[in-house]
Amino acid sequence: MNRLREHIEAITPLTDEEFEYVKTFFTLRKVRKNQFLIHDGDEVKYEFLVLDGIYKVYYIDENGKEHILQFAKKNWWMSDYIGFFKQQNSKMFIECLKEGEVVSLTLEGRNKLAADLHKMDHFFRIKLTNGYIALQQRIMMLLSGTPQQRYEEFVRLYPDLISEVPKKYVAEYLGVSRETLSRLYSNTNK
Amino acid sequence: MNRLREHIEAITPLTDEEFEYVKTFFTLRKVRKNQFLIHDGDEVKYEFLVLDGIYKVYYIDENGKEHILQFAKKNWWMSDYIGFFKQQNSKMFIECLKEGEVVSLTLEGRNKLAADLHKMDHFFRIKLTNGYIALQQRIMMLLSGTPQQRYEEFVRLYPDLISEVPKKYVAEYLGVSRETLSRLYSNTNK
Repeated sequence: MNRLREHIEAITPLTDEEFEYVKTFFTLRKVRKNQFLIHDGDEVKYEFLVLDGIYKVYYIDENGKEHILQFAKKNWWMSDYIGFFKQQNSKMFIECLKEGEVVSLTLEGRNKLAADLHKMDHFFRIKLTNGYIALQQRIMMLLSGTPQQRYEEFVRLYPDLISEVPKKYVAEYLGVSRETLSRLYSNTNK
Repeated sequence: MNRLREHIEAITPLTDEEFEYVKTFFTLRKVRKNQFLIHDGDEVKYEFLVLDGIYKVYYIDENGKEHILQFAKKNWWMSDYIGFFKQQNSKMFIECLKEGEVVSLTLEGRNKLAADLHKMDHFFRIKLTNGYIALQQRIMMLLSGTPQQRYEEFVRLYPDLISEVPKKYVAEYLGVSRETLSRLYSNTNK
């Protein structure tokens, strides 16, 4: 749980007593490769903070096509946030691409933590602010980003993932063909 | 300023004393049609809560093409949030389509309010949560929404705007041609 404390304290320092209380809301889980943390159609009980490993958050549209919403790695949060916040069933899958560990938190736990500790309300607000910025950047990339810009944004967001995630998923996230991705990749590494 | 109080109290009740303090951070502004609240290249000093009127938040890409990020109406917040939170110059324009009033808040004011009053930290966190959900829905629409689904989403988000915003802007927001929009519009109103 030291990694959880470090993650929170990067935003707001906690006393030992406060952290003892905070950590009672989190549950540590080991995750194997190809294991699903959230499955389309299930109740969304948790959000997850990644301590280790690589994860893919995606959904499948009416025509059976897969769309990747995000990848997640150490210190990223992930869930089907529409389902989580609205307490609806999931439209997303979260699949583990490389084994690791996560801590999970329920919505009830999140709300209680935020109500009890102003510091945690602050922490969640800052995290949401960063998430909001990331989503707005994604929208601008989808509306007007060239393949080159989308690729550069990906490398900026996930500098260590380009070599760890299968190329087909990177291409899918970027909305480009695998041939275009190979060209972008070799252009950038010249 | 009663409208500001009602807006905040829809999420968290405030005492008279608390609201007297809160309102000192906000400045009321009347806005004329075609006036810009934020202009590409300017410092992003404020975020705005709409009390009245209709506004368009958009940017122009490298090829001179306009992209609409959102419309805003009563009780919606708007800014170039990347510029606002990161204190960078704006990449966005906010233009008034129908005259009205807004209240403005600085980032410094926002942070001080959130630090001084746990209730306001809570308020901003809930607003950010709703904004996060809306952006994620927009991303899913951009990735996989059919024109019909995009149109229905627009009507759900902005039920009263479809008749007030020029059709060319609605078509641009949806990423469809004006012919397709006319077809969607007449299908839905049969």
